[in-house]
Amino acid sequence: MDQQNTTLASSFVSSTYIQQGADALCTRRRLIKTLLSQRCLPKDGWDEDTVELFIKDAAYMDSNNFLNSVGVGEREARVASRMVAKRHFGLAHGIGRSGDVAAEQPKAAGSSLLAKMTNILVQDALKGAGMLDVGAVTVLPLATGMALTLTLLALKAKRPQARYVLWPRIDQKTCLKAIVSANLEAVPVPCILEGDELQTNMPLLRSEIERLTPASIVCIVTTTSCFAPRGADSLVEVAKLCREADIGHIVNNAYGVQSAALCALVTSAWRKGRVDAVVQSTDKNFMVPVGGAVVAASKQDTSLVAAVNKAYPGRASMTPLLDVLITLLQWGESGWRTVLQQREALFRYANTQLEALAERIDERRAVSGTRVIARGKEQSVAGHHFTGYGAHYDAYPCDYLTFAAALGTTERDVDEFIRRLGLCIKEFKK
Amino acid sequence: MDQQNTTLASSFVSSTYIQQGADALCTRRRLIKTLLSQRCLPKDGWDEDTVELFIKDAAYMDSNNFLNSVGVGEREARVASRMVAKRHFGLAHGIGRSGDVAAEQPKAAGSSLLAKMTNILVQDALKGAGMLDVGAVTVLPLATGMALTLTLLALKAKRPQARYVLWPRIDQKTCLKAIVSANLEAVPVPCILEGDELQTNMPLLRSEIERLTPASIVCIVTTTSCFAPRGADSLVEVAKLCREADIGHIVNNAYGVQSAALCALVTSAWRKGRVDAVVQSTDKNFMVPVGGAVVAASKQDTSLVAAVNKAYPGRASMTPLLDVLITLLQWGESGWRTVLQQREALFRYANTQLEALAERIDERRAVSGTRVIARGKEQSVAGHHFTGYGAHYDAYPCDYLTFAAALGTTERDVDEFIRRLGLCIKEFKK
Amino acid sequence: MDQQNTTLASSFVSSTYIQQGADALCTRRRLIKTLLSQRCLPKDGWDEDTVELFIKDAAYMDSNNFLNSVGVGEREARVASRMVAKRHFGLAHGIGRSGDVAAEQPKAAGSSLLAKMTNILVQDALKGAGMLDVGAVTVLPLATGMALTLTLLALKAKRPQARYVLWPRIDQKTCLKAIVSANLEAVPVPCILEGDELQTNMPLLRSEIERLTPASIVCIVTTTSCFAPRGADSLVEVAKLCREADIGHIVNNAYGVQSAALCALVTSAWRKGRVDAVVQSTDKNFMVPVGGAVVAASKQDTSLVAAVNKAYPGRASMTPLLDVLITLLQWGESGWRTVLQQREALFRYANTQLEALAERIDERRAVSGTRVIARGKEQSVAGHHFTGYGAHYDAYPCDYLTFAAALGTTERDVDEFIRRLGLCIKEFKK
Amino acid sequence: MDQQNTTLASSFVSSTYIQQGADALCTRRRLIKTLLSQRCLPKDGWDEDTVELFIKDAAYMDSNNFLNSVGVGEREARVASRMVAKRHFGLAHGIGRSGDVAAEQPKAAGSSLLAKMTNILVQDALKGAGMLDVGAVTVLPLATGMALTLTLLALKAKRPQARYVLWPRIDQKTCLKAIVSANLEAVPVPCILEGDELQTNMPLLRSEIERLTPASIVCIVTTTSCFAPRGADSLVEVAKLCREADIGHIVNNAYGVQSAALCALVTSAWRKGRVDAVVQSTDKNFMVPVGGAVVAASKQDTSLVAAVNKAYPGRASMTPLLDVLITLLQWGESGWRTVLQQREALFRYANTQLEALAERIDERRAVSGTRVIARGKEQSVAGHHFTGYGAHYDAYPCDYLTFAAALGTTERDVDEFIRRLGLCIKEFKK
Repeated sequence: MDQQNTTLASSFVSSTYIQQGADALCTRRRLIKTLLSQRCLPKDGWDEDTVELFIKDAAYMDSNNFLNSVGVGEREARVASRMVAKRHFGLAHGIGRSGDVAAEQPKAAGSSLLAKMTNILVQDALKGAGMLDVGAVTVLPLATGMALTLTLLALKAKRPQARYVLWPRIDQKTCLKAIVSANLEAVPVPCILEGDELQTNMPLLRSEIERLTPASIVCIVTTTSCFAPRGADSLVEVAKLCREADIGHIVNNAYGVQSAALCALVTSAWRKGRVDAVVQSTDKNFMVPVGGAVVAASKQDTSLVAAVNKAYPGRASMTPLLDVLITLLQWGESGWRTVLQQREALFRYANTQLEALAERIDERRAVSGTRVIARGKEQSVAGHHFTGYGAHYDAYPCDYLTFAAALGTTERDVDEFIRRLGLCIKEFKK
Repeated sequence: MDQQNTTLASSFVSSTYIQQGADALCTRRRLIKTLLSQRCLPKDGWDEDTVELFIKDAAYMDSNNFLNSVGVGEREARVASRMVAKRHFGLAHGIGRSGDVAAEQPKAAGSSLLAKMTNILVQDALKGAGMLDVGAVTVLPLATGMALTLTLLALKAKRPQARYVLWPRIDQKTCLKAIVSANLEAVPVPCILEGDELQTNMPLLRSEIERLTPASIVCIVTTTSCFAPRGADSLVEVAKLCREADIGHIVNNAYGVQSAALCALVTSAWRKGRVDAVVQSTDKNFMVPVGGAVVAASKQDTSLVAAVNKAYPGRASMTPLLDVLITLLQWGESGWRTVLQQREALFRYANTQLEALAERIDERRAVSGTRVIARGKEQSVAGHHFTGYGAHYDAYPCDYLTFAAALGTTERDVDEFIRRLGLCIKEFKK
Repeated sequence: MDQQNTTLASSFVSSTYIQQGADALCTRRRLIKTLLSQRCLPKDGWDEDTVELFIKDAAYMDSNNFLNSVGVGEREARVASRMVAKRHFGLAHGIGRSGDVAAEQPKAAGSSLLAKMTNILVQDALKGAGMLDVGAVTVLPLATGMALTLTLLALKAKRPQARYVLWPRIDQKTCLKAIVSANLEAVPVPCILEGDELQTNMPLLRSEIERLTPASIVCIVTTTSCFAPRGADSLVEVAKLCREADIGHIVNNAYGVQSAALCALVTSAWRKGRVDAVVQSTDKNFMVPVGGAVVAASKQDTSLVAAVNKAYPGRASMTPLLDVLITLLQWGESGWRTVLQQREALFRYANTQLEALAERIDERRAVSGTRVIARGKEQSVAGHHFTGYGAHYDAYPCDYLTFAAALGTTERDVDEFIRRLGLCIKEFKK
Repeated sequence: MDQQNTTLASSFVSSTYIQQGADALCTRRRLIKTLLSQRCLPKDGWDEDTVELFIKDAAYMDSNNFLNSVGVGEREARVASRMVAKRHFGLAHGIGRSGDVAAEQPKAAGSSLLAKMTNILVQDALKGAGMLDVGAVTVLPLATGMALTLTLLALKAKRPQARYVLWPRIDQKTCLKAIVSANLEAVPVPCILEGDELQTNMPLLRSEIERLTPASIVCIVTTTSCFAPRGADSLVEVAKLCREADIGHIVNNAYGVQSAALCALVTSAWRKGRVDAVVQSTDKNFMVPVGGAVVAASKQDTSLVAAVNKAYPGRASMTPLLDVLITLLQWGESGWRTVLQQREALFRYANTQLEALAERIDERRAVSGTRVIARGKEQSVAGHHFTGYGAHYDAYPCDYLTFAAALGTTERDVDEFIRRLGLCIKEFKK
């Protein structure tokens, strides 16, 4: 219903009413205009209809949706199933070109626009969450582990002689596998125990660098978000060390975007030292289905993000980007701020409730969690052997259980969990 | 994505690609423009996306979908369930006003536009099916029976002293009930048997008019589409008689639009005599869910259609209109022509197959059908008592069965039916 | 995924996980079981998925969705457009039979089940809203006005000699047209002014009955919900009068279900006197798109509701019933209670805000509203002439404006309305 | 609507009708049962409703869709946007575990079931297309290029000392980048020109193996599907050579599944020699949106497919698998056969039309195509420099253009292409 159609419509229905309707249509288009011109999260979230309007209009701009188009290429985004086409809003060309996954796709102006917008909005969302000075972002249609692998491959390509990855131990299989799958040699560096918490063993890291020599080391992979008692790595110290030693530094920030503290830690690290890339998952931080990851870098050095984009061979699925785009448009800046604040509040709430439970059952306060970790488990992962697996440490001094106050967790979740946990403990004591 | 947004989009993706996409969007809008300016069925059917684009844009023009609207009336088309809103594309105001169900609704420019367009396209479709000189059409959100009642009420209002409705007998309950529900007195007029077929008894009709006097008669209700052996009424003769006697004439053309012969019959009738309104169902003629009916009149006299619109008290559901609109846009003129032709071909095919079956089973040829009609059934309907009910006749000379070659029936349907019928007959003979 | 399929699935995925999944499926089916066995609103609302599961399973039970079915009737619910079929969840047969719109439809077990369930849940919802002793309910796919017409026709059929409808004046066109469209003679009975409020003129009603004689009167049509300064009619007194005079009584309760006070008034009336039917709209009371109405009667006499069902000729659209069913299942008893309570609170809130505004602008307190009613408007409606139209009274002593605190109105709506109203008044005063 | 619910429903609607409906539901469930028990493509395609029934039931078996579930993990598949959740049918957990992307996911029984079924049906579809003896299949949520990279990484992990990949030149960037991104060294092997066609230079391949030594070579990557004048590689000869030399062999069969000839070639190759894995795209062969690839191996040696699954670090998107699953269920065996046959017919048709055009314009017959390739283009790709880029050959003797007769191309596409091409050539000659 553009101007001309509106005028024509006035011969069916009074022009006063048509004009009001046309104004309403304009209001929606103005939201899109603001998005395109301001290039940041809309102040308030869009309603579902406007989101769909935007995506559908973009889809109509892709060649496979051209009416009367003639395709004689081998890849014309023909979709056999209407059911499949509909779930993708008609978007079928994927993103990127053989040369660069972030490049525009000539056959798909609409998809290209949506993909660029996704990267821009995610960058804005990271800033909003507290990752200041973020300079480049790419949302990959790869879950965190595979995104880490690709990032490591891109970094390794810049350091062809290197083959080691120093890795402060964290007992989560994906990260270790991501290193090994890149055909790099993981060198686990045990943590040190400070009070309840496991912390980065900086002296050991230093001595390992010396032992292996910087030239043979691709990077250190640090971790921010993790299950207690493993604490976040000493990002700032490691970043300084990496700059000093001239080795790479990749941060596994899997579900850290949702934590203001971890975002601040990342900011400090890339301001004060070297951070080549920070990798985080889209599902855990933006509440979308599994399938995407964000690789981010600071303004100081965005070269690895560009290299990752260029390293991705061929086109790729658009779905994980589209899921994030829809979600961020529906949240807007205010909605994003709200879910982040709710999580922080939920974290405090869960803490209080757990302490209360601990008092009631007359126990030393449990370190939060649903994972029950008993001492002494031996396990092999991707060719590496670990003692005390699950506790991130050979000999953590006690059994414990741990749980997460993640984005989207509700007070009702916590209450019910505490209730069930209380029952378990009671039963167990008998 | 209007002009301005397209320009803005060119700062994200090469303007060449964006321009191609914008052109594609224009192509879709041009389809809508052609519809609005030519006011007839599109030559070729639209794809689902364009249909949705048109309906959604219209929906955004209804006040309940205005962003930031403030409603303090008692009827603001607030929809509680998102699931309900979605199935109606956000259209919730219904159609019409208290004064006229075909009038525009001030709060709903989009709904009003769609409703008007539906009436226009249906008028065009009736013409295409062979009802020439059609001059006014209203699609009512009432199934055929209730639409007949409303039409009779509107006609009765014009003839306040009259109370009888002459009705050539047809054994289909709804029609008789439609008369009785309007608190009018139905006077069934038995048919005469000519060969296999039951035909309008013109002499008896004439004598009934004389007996009751024209002034006391609201109208004759004739029937076109019906199950054999009842033939279509002698529409032309009845129309002439009605003009002569100055009494009303309403045609129950329930599923007659799909038959070129019946459409020609209606055309002849309203060209040569008096026809106040022709009522037909949307579900049987346009393959939509049950719920709507079309009341049509010829160019000569459109006053009853206008009266029906004015008689409908208050707003009404938009759903039956929208279903027809979607279907006609997806068919276009060519699709509509195709389904009509397929039905004619199917009718011939079914005929041939039945004759072949009749020969194989060495029987007198059965008059087509799935309804098995045995002689002599007595039944009361709406206060009227009938002998030989189902056969439209007190004493039809044989038992028979009958079936329909309706719009949408396939050769596969016919084949399978013939196969099963053959088995039944075989079994029965044993 | 029934038992057998679950067992088979265990050969693909560990039976422990499959069993958990099967349990979850059972939980959903148990919700449906509870609904079918308890026959009332679910305690808590269902999620969208369970609602869809229920509707889809019902749809698969309709003959048009049978896989491999063969249809050779004239009405087989074939749906040409996939887009249309989807919005109806594949339900296409409509509801009812030629004999009774509330009867089950042999070709459509699923549709029949959903229709019956709708009537049952609406009856429960009316009770929950405060209409106690409700004994029969039919949800018609007709908006309020047409439903009133049909109800009047059914009542008139029981009183063939009567033709008048006494009608305490209310300036809302639909109601008057509903009477006139039934070819009955409306006799407007002016209200009396008590303070600000227009009330039922009982002495005049009595004298009109005497003048016209009870035998010639079909019924009195009273009104509950209406715009100030028209008050609700004196339902109890009228009900007693109707019982005494042996004339019918139909209550136009268009948007009264949402008001606890009006529901209590209806309850009192049908407990203490005669009420043949109470008619209310589905859109205003249940927040669905325009298109349906509820005709209800008390346990004492459900005969008119049955007569209305039998009077509806032929099948009818299912859509308005389905919209209500979906909404009530999603609300559940608790959700329904909540929206009702919110409306009562909103009403009080709007009252307070309006009084505050009235004080600020130093005016006599405005009787609530968005309709601006100036004195002395003359208007003809359906052949009746009115003075002071809009005010429900020939000579209401002042101009005023009025608005509604309807179901779904929010505090934000009220605030914004008050703000804009304040601006208008300010401007006007200049 | 299980047995119990059906019984309960019989108290609302006649049990005869309910029973018919329940039988119809059973028919649908039986389709699912057949799928689960026979583990192959259904004989005939399923209708959309049955596909949705199956997917939805599976989705309800995933923990994130459990009613009343309590999640306190960091990854509970919470989905913020309803719009996003709906497009994924509520499936949000993705597929796989940290250990193995093809492993079942404990929190998602339904997703796991669907993922396994996808792999099984794709294996069946490959067989149906002519890839006999296929022994293992994994559908990866990675487009072809990235899937090749992952496959190369998995193979390299088995041959830690090797670093070269011999690669008969084909001018398509993605494949070369896939090698380079895996940090392997690509060794392009020029083709030889036989008549019009470019063929594998077997003698040169042999001498390269000798020159570099087998131990330092990870594998040969051959190509089947490609644009003329590049022919398919001599797969059988290369397979024999690889077995002989004990080096890996990966086949890039990007869009080769749709060609019976290429499938036969693959079958011959893995029967007569060594083929570690065959990689093909889902979008081009199964007409789904870009995003997935199939890695297949013969019964003789499925170890690399298993290694690829284990190499994928962490969970992954389910979308590309689901798209293929939906499409294959809707096609069924007969639909799949039909689209394959249509493509073969289309290929012959396009050939005939092109020859006719060539005669008309009095030219040496053009080798088919839309890519216009002029001689002598120099280009660098991923660090490699090429002469005559696009022609797969340093000095192809003529300019030419080429196009594809791909799955889904229609005769209308070909006709229109021929028409436009004719116009271009005419114009050019002027």
